[in-house]
Amino acid sequence: MELAIEQAKLAQKNNEVPIGAVIVSGSNIISSAHNTSNDPTAHAEMLAIRQACKLLSTPTLYDTDMYVTLEPCPMCAQAISFARVKRLYFGAYNPKGGGIENGAKILQFCSHIPEVYGGILETECSFLLKGFFEKLRDFTNCH
Amino acid sequence: MELAIEQAKLAQKNNEVPIGAVIVSGSNIISSAHNTSNDPTAHAEMLAIRQACKLLSTPTLYDTDMYVTLEPCPMCAQAISFARVKRLYFGAYNPKGGGIENGAKILQFCSHIPEVYGGILETECSFLLKGFFEKLRDFTNCH
Repeated sequence: MELAIEQAKLAQKNNEVPIGAVIVSGSNIISSAHNTSNDPTAHAEMLAIRQACKLLSTPTLYDTDMYVTLEPCPMCAQAISFARVKRLYFGAYNPKGGGIENGAKILQFCSHIPEVYGGILETECSFLLKGFFEKLRDFTNCH
Repeated sequence: MELAIEQAKLAQKNNEVPIGAVIVSGSNIISSAHNTSNDPTAHAEMLAIRQACKLLSTPTLYDTDMYVTLEPCPMCAQAISFARVKRLYFGAYNPKGGGIENGAKILQFCSHIPEVYGGILETECSFLLKGFFEKLRDFTNCH
């Protein structure tokens, strides 16, 4: 999760939403990514899945774990299931936009359901996001 | 929808799942795509959204309509909402994997809800998919 947080900090430096994701297999890092703008599908999880599938030349990431700093949205949750990720570890819960423990709770409709562990380094993960949105709000109020 | 069906037929020629999507703005075609393999996120709708956003250098496709030959899955449904597509026209209904009228019915959880019209050229759209999966089943049974 610390590597995913590093990715989120990289996003923050580029004025992108600070969310990071890492896919590992055992002790090997397969891919890592952070949110980017100008493409609504370019969430950290989606980019990490696409990178990993390209690297391994396969659409199925059996025996991999994903670490992501925020609870995945329904789009990413479904992609994680399609990719057959074995375990999902996420940081902050997302009551408004999450699709794992919140909202549509997508995994109940999926044929592959990864093991899910939420709230990993939650304080650090959510601190990054709160800081970003507070800054954005201050910017919007002044412009 | 006929252009989306053409995309699905292109996929079929390449032994990909025959699903096609087109994004239009008025009478202008912005992007068109079909499913591709080796990447679980590469559904026709996702590729069409990514192409359109790249072309227009924006993450929001206001005043666009999407035509897709199959009811979008939850991943694509959420992406369609994120992209602010105005109207969604789909062909065949997908009771097993769909996320619009079936399964998680994702749009009820979304902040942007496109107008939705299902069953457009439904017979032709589903005929393509049935043919593909029958061929796949025959192949699997023989190998």
